[in-house]
Amino acid sequence: MGLSDEKDAPRLLSEIASYHAHVYYDRLKTRPVAEWLRAAIGERFLVRLGNWHDEKVGPHDQSMFQVSFPNDVFTSLVPWLMLNHRGLSILVHPNTTNPRRDHLIDPIWIGTPLLVHGESLPDEHEAEEALLPNTTPTVVA
Amino acid sequence: MGLSDEKDAPRLLSEIASYHAHVYYDRLKTRPVAEWLRAAIGERFLVRLGNWHDEKVGPHDQSMFQVSFPNDVFTSLVPWLMLNHRGLSILVHPNTTNPRRDHLIDPIWIGTPLLVHGESLPDEHEAEEALLPNTTPTVVA
Repeated sequence: MGLSDEKDAPRLLSEIASYHAHVYYDRLKTRPVAEWLRAAIGERFLVRLGNWHDEKVGPHDQSMFQVSFPNDVFTSLVPWLMLNHRGLSILVHPNTTNPRRDHLIDPIWIGTPLLVHGESLPDEHEAEEALLPNTTPTVVA
Repeated sequence: MGLSDEKDAPRLLSEIASYHAHVYYDRLKTRPVAEWLRAAIGERFLVRLGNWHDEKVGPHDQSMFQVSFPNDVFTSLVPWLMLNHRGLSILVHPNTTNPRRDHLIDPIWIGTPLLVHGESLPDEHEAEEALLPNTTPTVVA
């Protein structure tokens, strides 16, 4: 199993165009925690906070909101979410040209992993760049 | 639930002294994958590769080796492990003054999460700095 064999070649970081974090919550029980977390993220990180999805949307099996962020935010936002998820489940996945693999095989989970309906996702797609930020961070993480 | 309340204050990134990644494998089935991954990590990242633990050790419920790394390596090593774990389970946890919480509540999982026997860990301990690197990376990730 030589590292020189092409089939064994590791995938490159340059495949990653951006990231999404999906912050899951229970509409009846943990929405206030998600509201706290969303506000705290917006105060600290230059990211795109997506809409509230109290109803299930896309491949997601629970209420959630999305955070879209560029590669250079990973190093601060992800550790901060590790320290501050407060029991919520958070999926962080890369955006490459294979959304199905990004969501099902290659993500990070913070908190308890949840079901993701990956069968609805394409395995070939243009890699999504980070969406335009809509936050104005003023607080150091 | 005002953000100004002290009890609601988010935890700070400065709590994190370093990180460990624990790469789990099955001694009979997936050790070759772990060997491949360990060699590829060593070629790419300035980290401390720990001993092989074919026998269970500490709070871990499966064979594993540890990777100790400083905060500034997080941004490249963790995404690279997301893309290249090849089905192995990997626990990435911060090192703060609370090892029990670091392992049980605040970690990242890449691949399928495994049992961690956190009851054996202290909840108050000196935060561990990154161990001295023992790799000489030559390859761009």
